[in-house]
Amino acid sequence: MPKISQKGQQMPQSPIRKLVPFAEKAYKMGKTVYHLNIGQPDIKTPQLALDAVKLHGLDILAYTRSEGSEEYRKKIAAYYAKNEIQVNHDNIIVTTGGSEALLFAFGSIMDVDDEVIIPEPFYANYNGFSTASGVKVVPVISKIEDNFALPPIEEFEKLITPKTKAILICNPGNPTGYLYSKEEIKKLADIVKKHDLFLIADEVYREFAYDGAKHYSILQEAGLDNHAIVIDSVSKRYSMCGARIGCLVSKNNEVIATALKFAQARLSPPTLAQIASEAALETPQSYFDDVIEEYVERRNVLIEELNKIEGVQVANPKGAFYCIAQLPVKNSDAFAQWLLESFDVDGETVMVAPAAGFYSTPGVGLNQIRIAYVLNKKSLIKAVNIIKEALKVYQD
Amino acid sequence: MPKISQKGQQMPQSPIRKLVPFAEKAYKMGKTVYHLNIGQPDIKTPQLALDAVKLHGLDILAYTRSEGSEEYRKKIAAYYAKNEIQVNHDNIIVTTGGSEALLFAFGSIMDVDDEVIIPEPFYANYNGFSTASGVKVVPVISKIEDNFALPPIEEFEKLITPKTKAILICNPGNPTGYLYSKEEIKKLADIVKKHDLFLIADEVYREFAYDGAKHYSILQEAGLDNHAIVIDSVSKRYSMCGARIGCLVSKNNEVIATALKFAQARLSPPTLAQIASEAALETPQSYFDDVIEEYVERRNVLIEELNKIEGVQVANPKGAFYCIAQLPVKNSDAFAQWLLESFDVDGETVMVAPAAGFYSTPGVGLNQIRIAYVLNKKSLIKAVNIIKEALKVYQD
Ligand SMILES: Cc1ncc(COP(=O)(O)O)c(C=O)c1O
Ligand SMILES: Cc1ncc(COP(=O)(O)O)c(C=O)c1O
Repeated sequence: MPKISQKGQQMPQSPIRKLVPFAEKAYKMGKTVYHLNIGQPDIKTPQLALDAVKLHGLDILAYTRSEGSEEYRKKIAAYYAKNEIQVNHDNIIVTTGGSEALLFAFGSIMDVDDEVIIPEPFYANYNGFSTASGVKVVPVISKIEDNFALPPIEEFEKLITPKTKAILICNPGNPTGYLYSKEEIKKLADIVKKHDLFLIADEVYREFAYDGAKHYSILQEAGLDNHAIVIDSVSKRYSMCGARIGCLVSKNNEVIATALKFAQARLSPPTLAQIASEAALETPQSYFDDVIEEYVERRNVLIEELNKIEGVQVANPKGAFYCIAQLPVKNSDAFAQWLLESFDVDGETVMVAPAAGFYSTPGVGLNQIRIAYVLNKKSLIKAVNIIKEALKVYQD
Repeated sequence: MPKISQKGQQMPQSPIRKLVPFAEKAYKMGKTVYHLNIGQPDIKTPQLALDAVKLHGLDILAYTRSEGSEEYRKKIAAYYAKNEIQVNHDNIIVTTGGSEALLFAFGSIMDVDDEVIIPEPFYANYNGFSTASGVKVVPVISKIEDNFALPPIEEFEKLITPKTKAILICNPGNPTGYLYSKEEIKKLADIVKKHDLFLIADEVYREFAYDGAKHYSILQEAGLDNHAIVIDSVSKRYSMCGARIGCLVSKNNEVIATALKFAQARLSPPTLAQIASEAALETPQSYFDDVIEEYVERRNVLIEELNKIEGVQVANPKGAFYCIAQLPVKNSDAFAQWLLESFDVDGETVMVAPAAGFYSTPGVGLNQIRIAYVLNKKSLIKAVNIIKEALKVYQD
């Protein structure tokens, strides 16, 4: 029997996937499971985006240009302008989700064995894209005690080698909820300029900045044009994860020309989803105001309830819709499994994401979980209560 | 300024893309351009597929499972059963086009510097996916004189090294239009079993088999379960290239489990397009009968007209909707450019794909072009006439 590749063997499984069979077991036992484990919001997609595909007048569902339709890219550029980001449509390649934008970015700037420095904990699929590209992730630890702020710039500097090609940040952060300040971005800008590196910023949660904080994009930073690559997506912004539309943005023409070759090889991003995404750009501000208000309330409730639990430490998220909580357990993997398999409060239990999967350094984050606050407040309160009751009896 | 990757530099441009600026020049000069260069059919998408997305009742456009929705995969399995291919839904991973299925297949079974043997001329983007995966394409020449039949199996055997992981065929072939016989598939089955290789068959043109010939899938070949990986797509079958839905099919569980990890990293194939693709499976046979009839008539007209031209040699395609024509020119790249830049018949000219881009061996196919018969008969006749007139005056 022919063998699969080493790369294929090394491809990580998502930290959540391992729990899926146990969730299925819980369903079979008749339990209700609160899903705090996923990044799929329960927020409604803007109706105008859903309607746009209903009204399409296509009679041939054809390929679009590999870089996305010009009309759509021009509207994306206008969206950025509204967000005080000056780019033009030639700086944009429409991709199949932010996921594909990451893959194109990695492929365009890194070869096998090249290194990318990423503050951890980080979005687990960065591991997958790195493995797929043969690239090495070099983590720099950010700490729950610091609310997951940017690690001291010296820590980055220590890790830079001739193989280092880029620093990758997620802003606001999944799974940390941390929003980098302008000053932190400027520090990163300095270091990538000094060492001639790329700075990739995954800004798919751009709109989700709370408490009056303003998101500062790396594309707003002067003098960074040759270094900055932004990963973006409609998935979370308009709660349309299933569209599979994102984009890669850079003012470095070589990066765009190169990413375009990857884009051409796969022909085209999805056409129907581009129609929906183009329409979504007309979403009124009131939609975002409501969504942000909802998330802030959820966050407040979540953090408040978590803080009530003895021995739980939680970083207060300033953006996105995740938080990392440190629990009084040794191994949150085992705890998460136990919650599904062996625990319930009146037939209800929760599914959380063990945080170790978001770290690249082995042994770190073993007592942490990631909670996605993608449920309504009532459910969140119930879910946290289940965790509280569980911790009273759990033995590891 | 930080540098792009070597891989990025090596990524090939599509053989057609180079001509795009010249096509744009032709438009600016007011010329009408017949596009024989693209694989985007002019055939209407089945109405029921277009309607399905208009009727969707979603209020959240959510991710689906990474492997595609179970319901859709079950229906795909039923489609295969109708085509005398016995697979079950667990053997199927839904992908973002056949393109992504190719990428997952390459990643799952090949590491950097591994080799894949491909009869040339072949679908040009195999080069792109190989470069992206760091894999080496080893071409084996199939000849226009033989109608691009399978090269003698000894030719394959000569090329097998310890690095060889797979043989990749496209059946029916783009750009050749060749349909492999059952006997040819059996020969390939023997050799991959003998040398413990994978056999990847890109069967995205399965339905397009002419003159009563029947497509024989590698999945129908007994004893090949551990070796066979099929690449499939709705793009051409239902003329819905813009959906971006395909699949990877294999009865080798390790291959599926590995490809699934790649699929999980990118989260989900497009949701709306899965709705359309699921509906498309209900397309009545009459649709295909009409489409096949149309393509056969086009092919007949095209081949007849081409054969009338002095010095032109053409392989008679038995499937797909492409053919390779050998022209009395030295360099079809220059000829194709000249057609756009400097030639017209009553303000009309044609765009063809120079065939060199479909060969991996340098210097081969320089006097060949690929013609896609994706235009109606009247346009095809006009287009071939333009080529005929052009050859009378062209000097290279
Ligand atoms: C930080 C981050 N980046 C990128 C993505 C990819 O999302 P998509 O491919 O749906 O745009 C996600 C999805 O959860 C994410 O959390
Ligand atoms: C032979 C072959 N394979 C695969 C593809 C990829 O098509 P898609 O990604 O649209 O399924 C094409 C498209 O032209 C093709 O001709």
